[in-house]
Amino acid sequence: MKPLAGLRVVEGSAFVAVPFAGMTLAEMGADVIRFDRLKGGLDAKRWPVTASGESLFWAGLNKGKRSVAVDLSRPEGREIVTALITAPGPDAGLFLTNLRVRGWMDYPALVTQRPDLIMVSLTGTRRGEPAVDYTVNPGIGFPMATGSPGSEPVAHVLPAFDCIAGQMLVGTLLAAERMRLRSGRGQLAELALKDVAAALLGHLGIIGEVAVNGVDRPKVGNALYGAYGQDFLLACGRRVMVVGLTDRQWRELVRVLDMAAPLAELAARLGLDFAREGDRWHGREAITALFAPWFAARRLEEVGPLFDAAGLTWSVFRSFAEAVHEDPDLSPDNPMFSILDQPGIGPYPVPGSPVNWGACPRTPPAPAPVLGKHTEAVLADVLGMTTGQIGRLVAAGVVAAV
Amino acid sequence: MKPLAGLRVVEGSAFVAVPFAGMTLAEMGADVIRFDRLKGGLDAKRWPVTASGESLFWAGLNKGKRSVAVDLSRPEGREIVTALITAPGPDAGLFLTNLRVRGWMDYPALVTQRPDLIMVSLTGTRRGEPAVDYTVNPGIGFPMATGSPGSEPVAHVLPAFDCIAGQMLVGTLLAAERMRLRSGRGQLAELALKDVAAALLGHLGIIGEVAVNGVDRPKVGNALYGAYGQDFLLACGRRVMVVGLTDRQWRELVRVLDMAAPLAELAARLGLDFAREGDRWHGREAITALFAPWFAARRLEEVGPLFDAAGLTWSVFRSFAEAVHEDPDLSPDNPMFSILDQPGIGPYPVPGSPVNWGACPRTPPAPAPVLGKHTEAVLADVLGMTTGQIGRLVAAGVVAAV
Repeated sequence: MKPLAGLRVVEGSAFVAVPFAGMTLAEMGADVIRFDRLKGGLDAKRWPVTASGESLFWAGLNKGKRSVAVDLSRPEGREIVTALITAPGPDAGLFLTNLRVRGWMDYPALVTQRPDLIMVSLTGTRRGEPAVDYTVNPGIGFPMATGSPGSEPVAHVLPAFDCIAGQMLVGTLLAAERMRLRSGRGQLAELALKDVAAALLGHLGIIGEVAVNGVDRPKVGNALYGAYGQDFLLACGRRVMVVGLTDRQWRELVRVLDMAAPLAELAARLGLDFAREGDRWHGREAITALFAPWFAARRLEEVGPLFDAAGLTWSVFRSFAEAVHEDPDLSPDNPMFSILDQPGIGPYPVPGSPVNWGACPRTPPAPAPVLGKHTEAVLADVLGMTTGQIGRLVAAGVVAAV
Repeated sequence: MKPLAGLRVVEGSAFVAVPFAGMTLAEMGADVIRFDRLKGGLDAKRWPVTASGESLFWAGLNKGKRSVAVDLSRPEGREIVTALITAPGPDAGLFLTNLRVRGWMDYPALVTQRPDLIMVSLTGTRRGEPAVDYTVNPGIGFPMATGSPGSEPVAHVLPAFDCIAGQMLVGTLLAAERMRLRSGRGQLAELALKDVAAALLGHLGIIGEVAVNGVDRPKVGNALYGAYGQDFLLACGRRVMVVGLTDRQWRELVRVLDMAAPLAELAARLGLDFAREGDRWHGREAITALFAPWFAARRLEEVGPLFDAAGLTWSVFRSFAEAVHEDPDLSPDNPMFSILDQPGIGPYPVPGSPVNWGACPRTPPAPAPVLGKHTEAVLADVLGMTTGQIGRLVAAGVVAAV
């Protein structure tokens, strides 16, 4: 039994956040039904794609869901989606969406069919304007604080706010469901991607840094802000990141590099106390100049085992391909990964949930569904339709089944 | 009433992920008790800090919690923490941690005191090695795919994997609690920061891109991968990001820029069909060259209203200070923000939860506690201690209260 066994969630979505939320619920055992229009959602062909045009992105973010393909432009299709979202049952009536459909699919319409409906809706901005990770991130300041001093703004490649929002949708849905169980009340819970990002800007102290300290954080390359952490080039051409954020990390780094004496001299000269994380930050350029020759004289084969043996917090820099080929944590050596044969794509290493549940065995990731794969099964088991009724809907092109 | 009213969670933590998780639970109404050693946790002085050394970071990630300060090196202190974690009650017995304490504070020891304990534990790697966002990110490949082609690796500034893991902890805890309610079973649920990142590398299609396509994604600056999205410099020196990811976004962008005819000519010349997102990607450099003069001839005051009126998905680039000063979404104009008077720091704009709960009124953010502010109250109301018992523990230095 998985933690969310029995829970049924209907997802109307595209792109990262909501699909990631639905997939996470599916990994925890929920029956997640994603509906899409007949030709697939806005993300059906999202890159990266294979040579034949199959979306590795879609396959990645929709694993373990059931897929229903339905014509959303026709009243009969809309009735089916409404019925799926508002189907009875104490563990159903949960709708997760980022689609901006006004009228038949908004909360006021849906709640008339199920008064205790829980709908969790992600918008772009709090005013419902369009916004995506690619526009939210530049607007709140990260690209102008990223990269080498003097460089142009650098956007992140990971759609970080989408991923954070996606996980926040999971917690929001489960909290709303917990409340409904106790109070009988459903509700519409709404959040905006931009608000998720703006909240983090506050939570991480960055708004306070501007408003209280009057500081506009500059670009500092790959330095760890406010303590010591830096990247170094090795003799072999590889690059490593080392971190001295906590006292223990700093102490061990200094010990392994055998730098206690020169650092004491440097601290005295600069009037700093490197036992204090802020002083490590203030002295970072001089510290880095002191450490760099040590790294430049050594190869990764020497540094790696030395750092691991000392329990240092460090990593080598890798490209995506180097990471996939070099790091056993990104392969089935890690029980989180399996070689999964994804229809249309073939076998490749695919991750399941990162969570190890003590009371539930780890299960391998399930493939993403082919569009419409579960249309017939869902209409039968959720809506109680007969084979004949389903056949007529398929024949009329209201739904598609494969 | 808030969604998680009545739930009690004990948090033993430092830095981003677990504090963010606990704070999110507190925002949803849970009673979150963070315990720390007498001098504060590893993150007590984490930057950014104010001129007087108060951590804006700590204040940002611990809002609305109750703080207990206790000497974890003494048996009496450990007994108190054990008793807090394993206190009875159907809505208690929930422990969230990233501390690596073996022995008295690990799951096998704690579960002897409460068989249905739920413990959600975040580690660095799946083997329990130290890892932080600063080391996980370089190791899996993002910095080598970030920034301008040919540039050195660029680490992200947002601790994205920490934030994602933090939200995943929330969903994991609530799912485990839902399961316990139905089955009576508690459990240890463990996840590793590096696995969270590795899973995302798979979910987003990047592992497939390497393993199936044999492609090691190169640096592409601020271009939106796989469709069209690009940054442009304006006549006024400001920079904007515009996105043509969906067909609608692309169509409207072309319409507002009045580029249909030259784009058709360009597409014919290149043998591409810009109605296809992949073809927009293949032709992006030529498209950008075509669009750039339009932007270079216009100022933000002209472009902004035009784009907003057309409903384009776009943003201006801002520094953190520009964002805080220019954008009403990062101020109390946004109901998510309040001016909060944080003890030791003073009043500044602070965000509450991004979630708008239809059935629960929005509440302003609560301050972060001063270390030990709730020691007395928690020992009294959770452990049932008398004022005399608490006074003796304070006098003996086992706990600290303010």
